[in-house]
Amino acid sequence: MNLRLLCKLLGLIAILIGAAMAFSLPWALVEGDWRMASERRGLAGLAGAIAACLAVGMSLRRLGRDARGQLFRKEAMAVVALSWIMATVLGGLPYWFSGTLRAPRTPMSLVDAMFESQSGFSTTGATVLAEIEDPAMVPRCILFWRSSTHYLGGLGIIVLFVAILGQGSAGKALMRAEMPGPSHSSPQARTQHTAWVLFLIYNGLNAALILALWMLRVPLFDAICHAFGAIATGGFSTYNASVGHFATDPSLNSVLIEITLVVFMIVAGTNFMLLYWLLVRKPEKLFRDVEWRTYLAILAGATLLVLIAGLVHGDFDRYGTSEVAIEGPGSADGPYPVIRGLRCSLFQVVSIMTTTGFCVDEFEKWNALSCGVLLVLMFVGGCAGSTGGGIKVIRHLLFVRILRLELEQAFHPRVVRPLRLGGEPVEDQSLRKNILVYFGLVGVIFVASWLFVLGVEPVTTWANHNVEHKMIDSISCVATTMNNVGPGLGVVGARQNFGSFSAPSKLLFTWLMMIGRLEIFVVLALFVPSFWRNQ
Amino acid sequence: MNLRLLCKLLGLIAILIGAAMAFSLPWALVEGDWRMASERRGLAGLAGAIAACLAVGMSLRRLGRDARGQLFRKEAMAVVALSWIMATVLGGLPYWFSGTLRAPRTPMSLVDAMFESQSGFSTTGATVLAEIEDPAMVPRCILFWRSSTHYLGGLGIIVLFVAILGQGSAGKALMRAEMPGPSHSSPQARTQHTAWVLFLIYNGLNAALILALWMLRVPLFDAICHAFGAIATGGFSTYNASVGHFATDPSLNSVLIEITLVVFMIVAGTNFMLLYWLLVRKPEKLFRDVEWRTYLAILAGATLLVLIAGLVHGDFDRYGTSEVAIEGPGSADGPYPVIRGLRCSLFQVVSIMTTTGFCVDEFEKWNALSCGVLLVLMFVGGCAGSTGGGIKVIRHLLFVRILRLELEQAFHPRVVRPLRLGGEPVEDQSLRKNILVYFGLVGVIFVASWLFVLGVEPVTTWANHNVEHKMIDSISCVATTMNNVGPGLGVVGARQNFGSFSAPSKLLFTWLMMIGRLEIFVVLALFVPSFWRNQ
Repeated sequence: MNLRLLCKLLGLIAILIGAAMAFSLPWALVEGDWRMASERRGLAGLAGAIAACLAVGMSLRRLGRDARGQLFRKEAMAVVALSWIMATVLGGLPYWFSGTLRAPRTPMSLVDAMFESQSGFSTTGATVLAEIEDPAMVPRCILFWRSSTHYLGGLGIIVLFVAILGQGSAGKALMRAEMPGPSHSSPQARTQHTAWVLFLIYNGLNAALILALWMLRVPLFDAICHAFGAIATGGFSTYNASVGHFATDPSLNSVLIEITLVVFMIVAGTNFMLLYWLLVRKPEKLFRDVEWRTYLAILAGATLLVLIAGLVHGDFDRYGTSEVAIEGPGSADGPYPVIRGLRCSLFQVVSIMTTTGFCVDEFEKWNALSCGVLLVLMFVGGCAGSTGGGIKVIRHLLFVRILRLELEQAFHPRVVRPLRLGGEPVEDQSLRKNILVYFGLVGVIFVASWLFVLGVEPVTTWANHNVEHKMIDSISCVATTMNNVGPGLGVVGARQNFGSFSAPSKLLFTWLMMIGRLEIFVVLALFVPSFWRNQ
Repeated sequence: MNLRLLCKLLGLIAILIGAAMAFSLPWALVEGDWRMASERRGLAGLAGAIAACLAVGMSLRRLGRDARGQLFRKEAMAVVALSWIMATVLGGLPYWFSGTLRAPRTPMSLVDAMFESQSGFSTTGATVLAEIEDPAMVPRCILFWRSSTHYLGGLGIIVLFVAILGQGSAGKALMRAEMPGPSHSSPQARTQHTAWVLFLIYNGLNAALILALWMLRVPLFDAICHAFGAIATGGFSTYNASVGHFATDPSLNSVLIEITLVVFMIVAGTNFMLLYWLLVRKPEKLFRDVEWRTYLAILAGATLLVLIAGLVHGDFDRYGTSEVAIEGPGSADGPYPVIRGLRCSLFQVVSIMTTTGFCVDEFEKWNALSCGVLLVLMFVGGCAGSTGGGIKVIRHLLFVRILRLELEQAFHPRVVRPLRLGGEPVEDQSLRKNILVYFGLVGVIFVASWLFVLGVEPVTTWANHNVEHKMIDSISCVATTMNNVGPGLGVVGARQNFGSFSAPSKLLFTWLMMIGRLEIFVVLALFVPSFWRNQ
């Protein structure tokens, strides 16, 4: 294990995080009221956290100053996992230092801060904050840092894997693990080039969405935060009612805002390599991509199912009657219940399946089939090579085909057919096994985490909710964190939060968010003793 | 496809089922009151069903009278699956012909009859009958037939696979699929011999349990029915409160009855090959068997967990206060809450994990962790080569080891370690893949069935229950039927039944019970068109 190089790289990441924090400072003056004590505490907390990042970064770089050599597969995995853990702790410091309140008179603990930080970096969007619109509880600069972690997390997923780790075979190995699609291994120079292009695409998408929202008269602060949330498929909003808030503001065209967000969420869940091909005028690569077509087909099918089930059960009638009043052709008292339903179901299906987690309605109060479909969609996730979480569409595609091939083989043992994707055989000796193992690990972690939550979580967590829903709520908690979605059912529904959970559960969820983002293997490997032995 | 031989074998099975039905006839006179109209209808229904079985059997044997040749793997699979389907229909005729009432003034439909029949043959023990103690609703002779189907199903699992299919390689292939343990392939003569020994062990266990219960002063009718339910790991009782009923009868020593049943359920969940080795005085084979030791360890661990969680939440305080009054040292007003808890949790854990499904308490009202543990245990099941359902302990054992090996390989790609079981390598090229595929299929079928139930089941099914529990109740419905357990949570809890479900759901559950019993591959293969093509 090349520990010096490891320290050097970790130090660089710590410094980058500190630098990124500095961008949140101005918002205390621009957006917040600096005469408020909370805003000043926010500023101080940010400054303290920046100092801590720089101190940690400098120390680590000093430790690794004579680093030489290369990163091998093992080291690359260690860098990724350890830098993620370090980012979680460092990124949580602003919340902790500033004494941000997660509920009235309840400052965030270190565990809360790590949860919120991990939720940001892993682009999950689950929160412990009950009231984010009140700057006396959550300073505006801290709120901006919260959304920034989405941006950084998405950037890390798309670019850092390639740019920093693009040296040597490990980078390519990780790159390929991240993008198991049709991308063939390429020489180092091309990898670096690709990284820069992806960096530009990612930033371009963010800029385009900020501009679009701003042109739809969304305030700049909200526009930036929601763009960070959408492109990174994170889901942190600046309103308690999430995107549903815009429908309550008669000065905004909430229909157009929602459509814009839907389009950008779909794009964010697309393999960024395909966007690159689109950019270099080879759109046929996008439209012929089997994974992308399946992704769109699942989105369309699920929307239709949720729409029909919702219309039958009258789920969309509630929309617009409570706190959320909506404008435009789909308004509650309007004559178009189907359009209102389509609006709700399309947004919610796209938001959940891309693992963004924005909400326009309290979908957890919809009928059981719709809730079930959304719960299953969490496990589907976006395309490989996107910022979306979940298991990824391509893995499901291969999974279903492998099962079908194996089933055939059970009674035609002598007929061996190759695994195909889009007509071309994609067989490599270990692919079948790897896909199956991945689903197996997801299953084991899911069930074990569920039992853990059932065991440690006291009934008082459901104080304001129906404790009899503990079993299904806990299922949704585990599903939503391990797939980096955000909201779940019941106690963690669209307008609820994870604040009331006990510390052990919060730590578990923090770990699940990381494991979901780093695709399990990287994180679990750290817990195997022989990983740390030399050789 | 050798259709003639297929017909011949199916005909034999139809005749055997008809013959088995005849044994239920006398109970109308011995146990029932033949002056009751319902009892006479029961007799007529049974007689009609016997005639139908014989007619079908004779016709099939006539069709296959010139049969020759051998059974190959495909034919063997077809025989097993088709004979199971045929048994389901034929075995349901007595319920349908006799107009048995599943609820007051509600005769069983053909779908109900098939559900109850499949539940019996697959040794599940799920029922649509709301009131089985009233002979005006369920005639005694029909109740006996209901328990007989458990006996026949268990017999089929243990013996028919070997005895009828023991000719040729297909028999061995199926035998091995059923018993993936340490059994090596053996010549045909030994297979036949083994089948007879297993037949004797199965009958011996039934006889021993009947005798034991009868000596504990359980009426003979109840003793036979509960023995059939326990040894086949079925779970049909003759009382609405299941085994919990005995605790309400002060003339019985319910503690001893429960302990006896626990011991026999544990034995029924043990690989019958190991019981054979025990019989020929080689007990070390039993005690050294990795699967059996794991099986006992899981039983002990789960009991401890359920006991502790139950004591913390006061789950066992309710026991004995409602309809169920219990006697002995564990009685409700007794001074030993731990003993009462141990009694409840041990019985319930053993009953659920062996997939028997007897109940002493309404376990669905216990705390969430206990319910969760029991739900997961449903998927564990008994040992391979036992009458127990579920995925089987050995598959879980191999599954966990495969995942661990693959995880190690993810960062030590060049170190390839063999899969070991009890110290010995058990690698065969396809074993790893087969185990993983099996879990994958279970997962896909589970999720798809869950969504199906959520979609088709109207809220009226939960008329007397909390409809908000629809999501978790449906999970338990699918889990309990596909693993051949019997009771589930909420609407299908310990003293509830499947009667109120819609016909599509009942058909799905019937199919799930079959798929669970025949270990998926055999049933799914029937739905693949190329299976039916020649060659």
